Amino acid sequence: MSGDCNIGLIGLAVMGQNLVLNLLDNGNTVAVYNRTHSVTDDFVKQSANDRLVGADSLQAFVDALAKPRKIILMVKAGSPVDAVIDELQPLLDKGDIVIDGGNSLFTDSQRRSDALTPQGIHFVGCGISGGQDGARFGPSMMPGGDESAWPALKPILQGISAKTDAGEPCCEWMGDGGSGHFVKMVHNGIEYGDMQMIAEIYDLLRATGLNNETIAQRFDSWNQGRLSSYLVEITAQVLRIKDDDGSDWVDNIWDKAGQKGTGKWTAIQALELGVPGSITTEAVYARALSSRWEERQKLNAFYQPKQSLTNYDGLVDDAEAALYAAKLIAYAQGFSLLSEAAREYQWKLNMANIAQVWKAGCIIRARALDPIQKVFEQSPTLDNLMLSDFYRTELNGCESALRRLLARAIEGGVPTPALSNALAYFDGVRSARLPANLIQGQRNFFGAHEYERLPN
Amino acid sequence: MSGDCNIGLIGLAVMGQNLVLNLLDNGNTVAVYNRTHSVTDDFVKQSANDRLVGADSLQAFVDALAKPRKIILMVKAGSPVDAVIDELQPLLDKGDIVIDGGNSLFTDSQRRSDALTPQGIHFVGCGISGGQDGARFGPSMMPGGDESAWPALKPILQGISAKTDAGEPCCEWMGDGGSGHFVKMVHNGIEYGDMQMIAEIYDLLRATGLNNETIAQRFDSWNQGRLSSYLVEITAQVLRIKDDDGSDWVDNIWDKAGQKGTGKWTAIQALELGVPGSITTEAVYARALSSRWEERQKLNAFYQPKQSLTNYDGLVDDAEAALYAAKLIAYAQGFSLLSEAAREYQWKLNMANIAQVWKAGCIIRARALDPIQKVFEQSPTLDNLMLSDFYRTELNGCESALRRLLARAIEGGVPTPALSNALAYFDGVRSARLPANLIQGQRNFFGAHEYERLPN
Repeated sequence: MSGDCNIGLIGLAVMGQNLVLNLLDNGNTVAVYNRTHSVTDDFVKQSANDRLVGADSLQAFVDALAKPRKIILMVKAGSPVDAVIDELQPLLDKGDIVIDGGNSLFTDSQRRSDALTPQGIHFVGCGISGGQDGARFGPSMMPGGDESAWPALKPILQGISAKTDAGEPCCEWMGDGGSGHFVKMVHNGIEYGDMQMIAEIYDLLRATGLNNETIAQRFDSWNQGRLSSYLVEITAQVLRIKDDDGSDWVDNIWDKAGQKGTGKWTAIQALELGVPGSITTEAVYARALSSRWEERQKLNAFYQPKQSLTNYDGLVDDAEAALYAAKLIAYAQGFSLLSEAAREYQWKLNMANIAQVWKAGCIIRARALDPIQKVFEQSPTLDNLMLSDFYRTELNGCESALRRLLARAIEGGVPTPALSNALAYFDGVRSARLPANLIQGQRNFFGAHEYERLPN
Repeated sequence: MSGDCNIGLIGLAVMGQNLVLNLLDNGNTVAVYNRTHSVTDDFVKQSANDRLVGADSLQAFVDALAKPRKIILMVKAGSPVDAVIDELQPLLDKGDIVIDGGNSLFTDSQRRSDALTPQGIHFVGCGISGGQDGARFGPSMMPGGDESAWPALKPILQGISAKTDAGEPCCEWMGDGGSGHFVKMVHNGIEYGDMQMIAEIYDLLRATGLNNETIAQRFDSWNQGRLSSYLVEITAQVLRIKDDDGSDWVDNIWDKAGQKGTGKWTAIQALELGVPGSITTEAVYARALSSRWEERQKLNAFYQPKQSLTNYDGLVDDAEAALYAAKLIAYAQGFSLLSEAAREYQWKLNMANIAQVWKAGCIIRARALDPIQKVFEQSPTLDNLMLSDFYRTELNGCESALRRLLARAIEGGVPTPALSNALAYFDGVRSARLPANLIQGQRNFFGAHEYERLPN
């Protein structure tokens, strides 16, 4: 049996619901299913849209879909995805398409793709970014897996995705296997770094005595320029939110950062692939460290009071330039990881497309991704963004501000792990000579490890 | 059938051979087996010791051992260990003891322990450090696994292990399952950090124009004081080695650092367990970055010349104090990871014993481990070494030197990822307030992630 719905979605938590509303806005006829049936009923009732079909069983859901069926899973990453696929698979026909839209680990997507392909089921692991608002009004989407599914999916997914200012869809085919979720993972890794670097700048500015409103004004103004980005924009907004008693909300939030794992995955992949991923990694550690709150309070009482940050003329301008430089370096690390993954896993990643897909809809959307897209359009196989003229111009212009700010942060005792690692990466990767010769000498001395002699 | 040998060893590469010679020196009667039989023959002939029995088959090897048999495996970590165990197991009797002395991943040791216990075979995963010389004249040993094997092994292993100045053996029982190899892994993680920090100090000193001999003299002199350690000692020696043409060997070594994986494993465990492990991690990334040599040469030519490091009065003294502070902080991170692992994996790790075992024989042996052992003897459950009076005194005395040096390195463009992360950790973990409140605010703003309000 088959029905009229051109797309189906399983899992009606907030992201799933918002994607459905987005699909409906864009002319699709949508079947939905949720394990707890009352959620389906309530959602269908509230939506009051005759192109929305609620199913009370998986069989009814499958029957409501036109063939070849296209089914988006929006369930919790991990074993719930496997459980749904196991239930769903016997009800599907050859040629049907299953799209996992959750934050799945890319190796899980690879495994699911390998398991479903022999059954004739096309599996697509599709990273989706943009939070609730993105899902509702246009997310950034990173589909990968079985490419034969793409022609049927393309109009639907590009239809609901965000669009860049130039009208390009923020949804392009990424590559085989788990590549879609890998790209989404790296997106999240960059997001971790971005957020940590913004937090460090905020910390530095408040250490100079600026209040939240003044800092918000700086972020507002930066958002008009080269730092223009979603995260800079919302930082100003977050800093201005008031609690009921009129106090600043941000001051009342406990400084213990949570995490859901995608940053950690990115760091582990950087380690596994041997690509420096220090900015994401230190952002993950900074969240972990923030959560050790009781330990921090004890240690704070145990040590000499901190030095204080002495202001200097131009510190606020330096903060803008430093954040910009560090942000560019973080993108360079992220794309470097993508390059290495493409080599290792034999994916044909199109870096320009990835930059395009990240230009709108997603959490890391930023003006700087536009010149990055252009760099990759001109040099599709560039291994390191730092080898582009765009980077050279920008970093040569900003590196001294980053140095000045970090030197002051270090003297003042304000921890800046992500910003410091951005500079350490810049200084390291452009060093003709590093002191690794001594390390090789030590290793040879105590362990007879082999070493090479410097070429003449 | 059973023979007279109280211990056997499989795998006669250099570490295995040296362990056997050490066992013979200490009164043991040793059976040996090697897959390539000529290696066994040559070794037995050269050793000319009537307490050494070479076996030409695994059966002959097993038959040469007194029951319960005690068998040390010194084969390459990974599948070769499984292959030997698979071959060996049918030949063993209940009560026999198998000790894996390689650098195995702790989860592999856990798995092997779980598989052999039901067979009545006692499995011990024993980390061994000290390189070739350690194996020959007294290594540091970290056995863990099936504790019922310990009484029989204790006299043999403590007999061949290094001894501290106070005569304590550098071999104590670590704990259940894979704990021995976990502790060894963390040892290696600390070693990565130590080597990278020494390399950064060397890099800073050469950037001020000091030659290798002068730098070697500084390391020699530091080795007489609180920095006294194997790695500082051999750094001076490595810097003085001459090539045949009279040039300094260290200058002719290609600055591309290799790695065998234990540093990476440590970093991944720190990420998995949510413990800041930035110093080891950045040491791993620094090796990876050094290996991207061609990329570095291109980038070096592509960017403005580096700033140069301006010397200042006291820079060399600051370097000593900075290295000492950073080294203490690296130990704090390492022991913090051990604490978290003990909680997570339910091991009863004795931190004082671990410090003791590392005080001699191993690569990270250092004078500073003696006061650390005393700290843990007084406070066995201390979560962070930084909460000890010893650390407070030492770090309060040295932190300003670390700050001065890093500020200058940053201005001068000398990359110091490990040293910088040591300071960032110190400044972070002793911060009563971190900017993670902004991160939680952002996460809540775009993703409805939950947050907590600061307690009153």
